[in-house]
Amino acid sequence: MKVLIAGIDGYSGWPLALHLLQRGHEVTGLDNFITRRRVSEVGSWSATPILSMERRREAVRREWGKTLGFYRADMGDYGAISRILDRERPEAIVHLAEQRSAPYSMIDVHHAVETQCQNITSTLHLLYAMREHVPRAHLVKMGTMGEYGTPNIDIPEGFFEIEYRGRRDRLPFPRMASSWYHWSKVFDTGDVMFANKIWGISATDVMQGVIYGTRSPDIVDDRFLTRFDFDEVWGTALNRFCVQAILGLPLTPYGKGGQKRGFIALEDSLQSLRLAIENPPAPGEYRVFNQFDEAYSVGDLARLVVQAAGEMGITAEIGNSYNPRVEAEEHYYNPHHENLLSLGYRHTRTLEESIRGILEDLQRFRPRLEAKRHVVQPRMDFRRPDNKEPLRITPRRAGRGTRRPGRPRR
Amino acid sequence: MKVLIAGIDGYSGWPLALHLLQRGHEVTGLDNFITRRRVSEVGSWSATPILSMERRREAVRREWGKTLGFYRADMGDYGAISRILDRERPEAIVHLAEQRSAPYSMIDVHHAVETQCQNITSTLHLLYAMREHVPRAHLVKMGTMGEYGTPNIDIPEGFFEIEYRGRRDRLPFPRMASSWYHWSKVFDTGDVMFANKIWGISATDVMQGVIYGTRSPDIVDDRFLTRFDFDEVWGTALNRFCVQAILGLPLTPYGKGGQKRGFIALEDSLQSLRLAIENPPAPGEYRVFNQFDEAYSVGDLARLVVQAAGEMGITAEIGNSYNPRVEAEEHYYNPHHENLLSLGYRHTRTLEESIRGILEDLQRFRPRLEAKRHVVQPRMDFRRPDNKEPLRITPRRAGRGTRRPGRPRR
Repeated sequence: MKVLIAGIDGYSGWPLALHLLQRGHEVTGLDNFITRRRVSEVGSWSATPILSMERRREAVRREWGKTLGFYRADMGDYGAISRILDRERPEAIVHLAEQRSAPYSMIDVHHAVETQCQNITSTLHLLYAMREHVPRAHLVKMGTMGEYGTPNIDIPEGFFEIEYRGRRDRLPFPRMASSWYHWSKVFDTGDVMFANKIWGISATDVMQGVIYGTRSPDIVDDRFLTRFDFDEVWGTALNRFCVQAILGLPLTPYGKGGQKRGFIALEDSLQSLRLAIENPPAPGEYRVFNQFDEAYSVGDLARLVVQAAGEMGITAEIGNSYNPRVEAEEHYYNPHHENLLSLGYRHTRTLEESIRGILEDLQRFRPRLEAKRHVVQPRMDFRRPDNKEPLRITPRRAGRGTRRPGRPRR
Repeated sequence: MKVLIAGIDGYSGWPLALHLLQRGHEVTGLDNFITRRRVSEVGSWSATPILSMERRREAVRREWGKTLGFYRADMGDYGAISRILDRERPEAIVHLAEQRSAPYSMIDVHHAVETQCQNITSTLHLLYAMREHVPRAHLVKMGTMGEYGTPNIDIPEGFFEIEYRGRRDRLPFPRMASSWYHWSKVFDTGDVMFANKIWGISATDVMQGVIYGTRSPDIVDDRFLTRFDFDEVWGTALNRFCVQAILGLPLTPYGKGGQKRGFIALEDSLQSLRLAIENPPAPGEYRVFNQFDEAYSVGDLARLVVQAAGEMGITAEIGNSYNPRVEAEEHYYNPHHENLLSLGYRHTRTLEESIRGILEDLQRFRPRLEAKRHVVQPRMDFRRPDNKEPLRITPRRAGRGTRRPGRPRR
């Protein structure tokens, strides 16, 4: 099948491209490399050394004799997106090209606006370009389990049948996100549902759990590594706990650590996306997948990391910390996830196993962690309106578009 | 009370300023006059001749001896909004400064992006500026009944208690909007709820029905008139039906005309907003008002206009038309609206009475309608991805900010 991956340079975009290529699909990607720039904006880098896209494609060509198509393009440029869809005519489009960090969106007003506007613009651009050039293509849209929040009732997959005051309807499940970023994903869901309603765009809206792991079977050597972020802004809690264990820093679950979330291994996430692509919805159908395997609390993650580290002879300890987020630290959590199972999805990698893999890989790249030791421990506070101080964000340099006329470029 | 009205130059912003001034409140407004420019972009103007803000303020001073504060400012400029809040320190802020037309948002991809980004940016800017300077102020946010769509169950005010699979919770009522514009209002609701959750901003989120009428008791002569739009993009269905009746054009309800919406008279909408301001929520409270009096179908509106016109000796007729929107033309509709009544709200003006007032005023300004006869009849199609052709939008001239350097201004 012909697949376009928007955001192919990202943590899951890159191994997804490898996985689909190995399964015989024709893959083209696009990216503007903004995650690489944004991570360096907070003074960090990927724990795993990653190649440039040019060298990544070269490795694919050499190792497997396959061609990976690529466009350097920005989702904010409608003309570019429209031309790529017109030229490529993909059957499936995986949309991973969004700002993906909750803490980044909480830095200050400008990062909040940037996150929400860029994310909804990317989705609107894609929807309109699909309508224009490939109205029968299948959109696989990356959302997050975080859209639902943590209600005191079960979380169905997108919709639920309810009875209210004696009447019944099937309605979208209420969303209660907990960062400007998570809300931007809720907004995308609204826009994709609406495009499906008015134009009949077929879509799989993926409510993705937190992904873990450094490995997938297609990452056959270090040329194929995907990025692994561990700083406060771009790393997940699990990633940071693993790096803290390696560096001998106390692990920092927030507050009581009872906050539960859904998790899925990197390679199982790739399996899920492939299954969605290979089993598209009916023409004009909009479906929602809750894409995760198990729910764990933040405290569980920390304990599992301590245990796995211990087995490797590394003594790690948990230093309970202040909770900068506004969230329930103990709550009910029971999301459903049957839709993927019905397509044949099988859980292949446990969290314990993946944590060992992460710790082994991080040991190999320990000097890269040591060099960025200062970005691991939490300093942000979601309750404060402006996080610039504690984060010490490097001021962004003026981009090309904002260069003052008449001044020579240095 | 000290009130700031963002969007004071608009259809309801201006008479709200008059109403609050007359009730003894201290009023300051801000506006960037974009609605005046956008209406001329589609080749139209207000049926009622409206004064410049300078002359409006002069009339207030002369007639009532009162000072109306005003800032020309754009909600997209965080620095400006922040400085205004810092200087004015309002106790209540009414946020009416958003793109308010569903058809405008549906013109093409760029109008969709512009509507959603500008609307959520304005709300985020206001929330952050409030948090910075007036965290105890009360935000009165203008939303729309259209956020809810038309579910087959009753529509509560914002939240509902539900039981699902044996457990209970109080959750936001699911939203199902029907244009990019309406979705932008859903997105605002998410952002305001979240700011309330993390910072304790007090807010009244107003799910406003369609407002009708040209009059309020404070519009004592033509210097105080508020705008009245009647073109396909900026006029409501009722406004267009009234103008069609005056011009001898067939009235154009879409499809079967069974689409029901909630309606409220202009002066009752002002009464509602004043009641919300004078009875603020508890500190840290977020509350939702469904602000309308009666639900009418589009067909009802058309028939009431024909009847009122007939009583004035004007023969009007209904020419059923194609429905360019994707919506149920017959549906259940039962939204609740008890919160306002509990604050002492009383319905003072019926739709029939207001329609007569509108027709009388339009008769007076008939030449202004004749001059714009060509913009009344519907040409847009929500089902098409690009509406530029049928609408014949005048390309926007480059604004000041985008003037090329080195070229003299003419």
